[in-house]
Amino acid sequence: MKLYDMGLAPNPRRVRIFLAEKGIEVEREEVDIPGGANLSDAYRAINPRCVVPTLVLDDGSIIDESIAICRYFEAMHPSPPLFGTTPIEQAMIESWQRQCEFDGLFAVAGVFRNRSPNFAGRSMPGAAPSLPQSAELAERGALLTAHFLERLEARLAASPFVGGEAYSVADITAMVVVDFAKWVRIRLPETHAATLSWYAGVSARPSAKA
Amino acid sequence: MKLYDMGLAPNPRRVRIFLAEKGIEVEREEVDIPGGANLSDAYRAINPRCVVPTLVLDDGSIIDESIAICRYFEAMHPSPPLFGTTPIEQAMIESWQRQCEFDGLFAVAGVFRNRSPNFAGRSMPGAAPSLPQSAELAERGALLTAHFLERLEARLAASPFVGGEAYSVADITAMVVVDFAKWVRIRLPETHAATLSWYAGVSARPSAKA
Repeated sequence: MKLYDMGLAPNPRRVRIFLAEKGIEVEREEVDIPGGANLSDAYRAINPRCVVPTLVLDDGSIIDESIAICRYFEAMHPSPPLFGTTPIEQAMIESWQRQCEFDGLFAVAGVFRNRSPNFAGRSMPGAAPSLPQSAELAERGALLTAHFLERLEARLAASPFVGGEAYSVADITAMVVVDFAKWVRIRLPETHAATLSWYAGVSARPSAKA
Repeated sequence: MKLYDMGLAPNPRRVRIFLAEKGIEVEREEVDIPGGANLSDAYRAINPRCVVPTLVLDDGSIIDESIAICRYFEAMHPSPPLFGTTPIEQAMIESWQRQCEFDGLFAVAGVFRNRSPNFAGRSMPGAAPSLPQSAELAERGALLTAHFLERLEARLAASPFVGGEAYSVADITAMVVVDFAKWVRIRLPETHAATLSWYAGVSARPSAKA
């Protein structure tokens, strides 16, 4: 089993934090995305979709969606549970994980990929069509990120963790969103007391450094 | 338990198909999204996010992401499994379900919400910021939809179902994408033989009419 990884990028970081929380060690190989290594012929032969992270299993199967990789490890190593245990816990964590992705991670990515000079001509991930950067999309992304942070604050004012009573994969995504947002100079407002307190807690976990 | 539903929209349809495949009956109430009922005070009191579908449980909890609602029912009624059983099945179905959503459903929604006169001034779902429609986003959506359909064809040329050997939630999302794409006049190319054959099969299931 091998995990194709990239130290700085938010999606691979989600998987590394997940593995650290589970105490699972996996062989890793770094892929230089800014240098374009994910679009090389060598990497394309591993994963034609050219995205990172990609998990290659011993039978040659590849799993290349961060949350799908996490679900694989959750099924193989159920403890500690990071996708919930009861049906309602599972549903709430799934719901919040998705909201943190769609409304948070995708919004920040919209700003970053449409503004960063490194991504000129490839505002979409991996082998997706190479669309030009769009100032309009960057602006929308910034507006939606701010909206997401408001909703996150409301949620964390009412719940100790994003998915409910316990730390879960939803916290991993939300923390990664907060850190990724700094790349595009969007910071947690000082008035977001609940989020700031939660963020201090999740960032202090050893897994946050993974 | 009550499911807030909308007959025509693609996301509520995913949940209805899922329930039909499981043989589960749930009380439903129709929400008139084109008429703006999801943004009414009455609906806002049920779900401040103003999205449909929303499942309200007997204890008052709400679950308002289609796939989170499906996961709730999968946990409550595991048979027949629609999210896979073994770790690798679960991961592959999760991966493909996500790809069908991100690369397919979101792409078509990008065209529809940015072109349909009914969605002028509310190109984002529910209570998200009311962004103006964007011709650029509609055009990108059409391009990404075409790219997704190519990838779906490649997948179905190699696999009987989208998620693998058995019908799953990934097929539900993919079928809904194909039908939703017709709303924006994107049809399966005649050359996509594997997808056309798969589509005929999944559309003939009684659940497709749910």
